[in-house]
Amino acid sequence: MNVGIAGYGNLARGVEAAVTKADDMKLVAIFTRRDPATVTVATDTPVYSWDDMESMTDQIDVMVLCGGSATDLPEQTPQLAKLFTVVDSFDTHAHIPQHFSNVDAAAREAGTIGIISCGWDPGLFSIARLYASAALPNGADYTFWGRGVSQGHSDAIRRIPGVADARQYTVPVPEALEAARSGSNPELTTRQKHTRECFVVAEEGADLAAIEEAIVTMPNYFSDYDTTVTFISQEELNANHAGLPHGGTVIRSGKTGLDDEFADTVEFSLTLDSNPFFTGSVLASVARAAYRMHQEGQVGARTMFDIPPALLSPLSAEELRAHLM
Amino acid sequence: MNVGIAGYGNLARGVEAAVTKADDMKLVAIFTRRDPATVTVATDTPVYSWDDMESMTDQIDVMVLCGGSATDLPEQTPQLAKLFTVVDSFDTHAHIPQHFSNVDAAAREAGTIGIISCGWDPGLFSIARLYASAALPNGADYTFWGRGVSQGHSDAIRRIPGVADARQYTVPVPEALEAARSGSNPELTTRQKHTRECFVVAEEGADLAAIEEAIVTMPNYFSDYDTTVTFISQEELNANHAGLPHGGTVIRSGKTGLDDEFADTVEFSLTLDSNPFFTGSVLASVARAAYRMHQEGQVGARTMFDIPPALLSPLSAEELRAHLM
Repeated sequence: MNVGIAGYGNLARGVEAAVTKADDMKLVAIFTRRDPATVTVATDTPVYSWDDMESMTDQIDVMVLCGGSATDLPEQTPQLAKLFTVVDSFDTHAHIPQHFSNVDAAAREAGTIGIISCGWDPGLFSIARLYASAALPNGADYTFWGRGVSQGHSDAIRRIPGVADARQYTVPVPEALEAARSGSNPELTTRQKHTRECFVVAEEGADLAAIEEAIVTMPNYFSDYDTTVTFISQEELNANHAGLPHGGTVIRSGKTGLDDEFADTVEFSLTLDSNPFFTGSVLASVARAAYRMHQEGQVGARTMFDIPPALLSPLSAEELRAHLM
Repeated sequence: MNVGIAGYGNLARGVEAAVTKADDMKLVAIFTRRDPATVTVATDTPVYSWDDMESMTDQIDVMVLCGGSATDLPEQTPQLAKLFTVVDSFDTHAHIPQHFSNVDAAAREAGTIGIISCGWDPGLFSIARLYASAALPNGADYTFWGRGVSQGHSDAIRRIPGVADARQYTVPVPEALEAARSGSNPELTTRQKHTRECFVVAEEGADLAAIEEAIVTMPNYFSDYDTTVTFISQEELNANHAGLPHGGTVIRSGKTGLDDEFADTVEFSLTLDSNPFFTGSVLASVARAAYRMHQEGQVGARTMFDIPPALLSPLSAEELRAHLM
């Protein structure tokens, strides 16, 4: 199966690596809205201009979209679903129903499949929530993120006057994790679940107290959390905070038995050196499933909820039953 | 959807509770090979003789088989798949391909679906191994069981002369769990991964040293493990070891990046007060999926690898996307 990548940033590098390493896939094209001559990719995959896509529909079985959820994907996924079977990582949870509907209309008209909101959250975490709630219908869900870098929160700090650079870590509170695991189904507030650690490089002569105040009082991003701010040098940030680690934990505790007499806990967790490379690897496996579902004659929008897990694997159904069941 | 249960033991009690509590299912019949008059069930579900099944095919949408894997299910699942869409929990891993093939032939001929090997291992653990290996193709899998009661090992101890009763706990070794999580992909022997704790009630005047020797040297069951034997009274066993708790952990560690430069860990774990009631709850969710897949016109054998996760949930696709994605 021939795979294309639309947009080339961190996530695309992750997809590029995963597709290149998969024996059953070939990465045939990377498309960019920049001048292709200015884009250096990690493999010898040819880089094309975005406008070349339309003439290459017969060369690409699945297009993996690697744009951002704020402005790129809401437009691009429905547009590209008119040309290709597509996979995206749209992660604005509140807008998923609308995005699904837009992609569904485009894909049905074109006879393609569009699998949206793939990755780990939404994605593998969503699936963990679904399996756990199907097995334990009477229960409560908890999702914790981190310890990991939130790029959105890091960007928000960088927009404060006097800030040269910043990295923000989301950190689950150990006591909240234990409470969620305990089976007591506690109500946990935003502040109880996560803390936020900010490592900030200030510009020469900046007012550090004002920067710290601007961070910890920022609505939506920080004001509902216990936030710590540590000023460091650019060198220290480059040396110790260059990576994009992330991860998290989904916990569901619930009851079984006619009288709810048994308590059970289901837990799914990820610890990732690189958020974009792991997400890219998940997207590559979903591209495989999208190809197979389209080969079966399916059309329209889907999420990972709709993918039989076997379709994600390069192994045959027989191999899976013999070795992983 | 109308559900039947074939066979009435611990697992069936779990299915009975889960189906009874589900708003979209009705438990219409429990079938037994014993005299139905001698079987007392936990709900007001009518109990029928096994031989009544054949005349009740129009009253039951899905039959959940609750027999054992050693001798019951290899015969019963193919037989009953000729009459009903069926779900079983066949858990003899090595024989799954043969069982699948037998059920597939019967179900295809009858136009039914047979979903085999459902529960948590095989079942949710298998699915965790599959998602993790699809996301991290370059990696290693580890499965740990416990702390929990192994009924097979408890039974094996009870067959030793001089033993009145026994309960065996399988216990994962904490250092092995940490090694598996570390990302170093260690080779772990059977002895390194689990220990076995045996609580034994001896008959009056029995030779305790001989019983202990018979346990720790028993091939397949105990000789490859570090096993501890503790003799207790029947009263203490009844008071402290009456339950059937279980659980375990699936860990996959692997690498992403073109040069395998990033290390990631995926972990899925269960902590269960009651193994049969949780397994029964999973089987009830699979019965829902089996019904929906059969309604779609599918026939033949399946495993949980083939079920789109959305089909397990009583929630609609729209609700799932809005609330769990």
